[in-house]
Amino acid sequence: MTDFFDIVRMQRACRSYSNVPVSDRTIAQILTAATFAPSAENRQPWEFVVVRDATTRAQIGDISRRAWEEHGRAISESRLSPELLADVDYGATQGVEAAPVNIVVCADTDRGLEVTVPSSIFPAVQNLLLAATALNLGSALTTITTGYRLQIQRLLELPEHVWPVAVVPLGHPGRRLGPPRREPFEQHTHRDRYGLRW
Amino acid sequence: MTDFFDIVRMQRACRSYSNVPVSDRTIAQILTAATFAPSAENRQPWEFVVVRDATTRAQIGDISRRAWEEHGRAISESRLSPELLADVDYGATQGVEAAPVNIVVCADTDRGLEVTVPSSIFPAVQNLLLAATALNLGSALTTITTGYRLQIQRLLELPEHVWPVAVVPLGHPGRRLGPPRREPFEQHTHRDRYGLRW
Repeated sequence: MTDFFDIVRMQRACRSYSNVPVSDRTIAQILTAATFAPSAENRQPWEFVVVRDATTRAQIGDISRRAWEEHGRAISESRLSPELLADVDYGATQGVEAAPVNIVVCADTDRGLEVTVPSSIFPAVQNLLLAATALNLGSALTTITTGYRLQIQRLLELPEHVWPVAVVPLGHPGRRLGPPRREPFEQHTHRDRYGLRW
Repeated sequence: MTDFFDIVRMQRACRSYSNVPVSDRTIAQILTAATFAPSAENRQPWEFVVVRDATTRAQIGDISRRAWEEHGRAISESRLSPELLADVDYGATQGVEAAPVNIVVCADTDRGLEVTVPSSIFPAVQNLLLAATALNLGSALTTITTGYRLQIQRLLELPEHVWPVAVVPLGHPGRRLGPPRREPFEQHTHRDRYGLRW
């Protein structure tokens, strides 16, 4: 499947993964796509740590689980539908670690200004997720571990100036994913001024 | 052109625009693509203000120019090549206003948690830029005006809880764009731990 608009409409968070491995060649295609995203001053401040090692993935999984159990769940519990809560709960406690690959997307703050980290990293993450979808892989954008920057830095031996921004589990989906649910754009689009509806 | 990987490789910042208008139908396709991006808790906290009104675009252009002249240029001057500096300078001082459409992408902080604004908005912006490319339009991710949140809020009558996050000029390119310049992903990719090169 390579049609751009089809891929955009199919891309969604995958929480469960099979243990079928993902080749270096596939990862190369996905990360090349990521690097074509824009970044402030074209600084390309991304660093990708591709984690396949099972012990390291288990440790990332531990940090994810802890972040969810100590902070995330209490915030989300009252905000999400029971169905989505169960899905996110599974993803945070088991899904990250179960994926055969975890891509930890980092920002090198020596290369890009700190204030531009989000606008220079999340577009690359989105390219990564879309490219994974185009290659029939599951993935998800998770940021819950980034409140535990020091632990991730220690685990992956990141220098102080390299900040983890997102953890993307990647692999073949464990089950078929339904289509994403979205509100029509018209509900959130305005003409010239806020409140003048589309 | 609809091949996903081709579009990813073609997408790049456009700084000069023709005054050929962009139809509502095209904008609908682009914003629909934007809404298929992931967001924390699937909150879809985006609000899009589609500005065609020339006076309002000139005012956004003024804020962009001021932000660049008062802050941006001094920071970027020593960091960018003369060629890229001239390009960015043109974009910030004239390009935003010259585009027939400015899409101001905002985050509704009543709907999404503040801490999740960047990870919930920039993926949608990237979908927007890619969709524009797929439809042969030029666009650019600009964030320089967002240091002037209050002015943008006043101009577009945004409620206090709706924050402008990016301004995307959109239109037919004024001149043919060359391919984007990127470093190979291998230069910024590590195996299992930082420093273990791909």
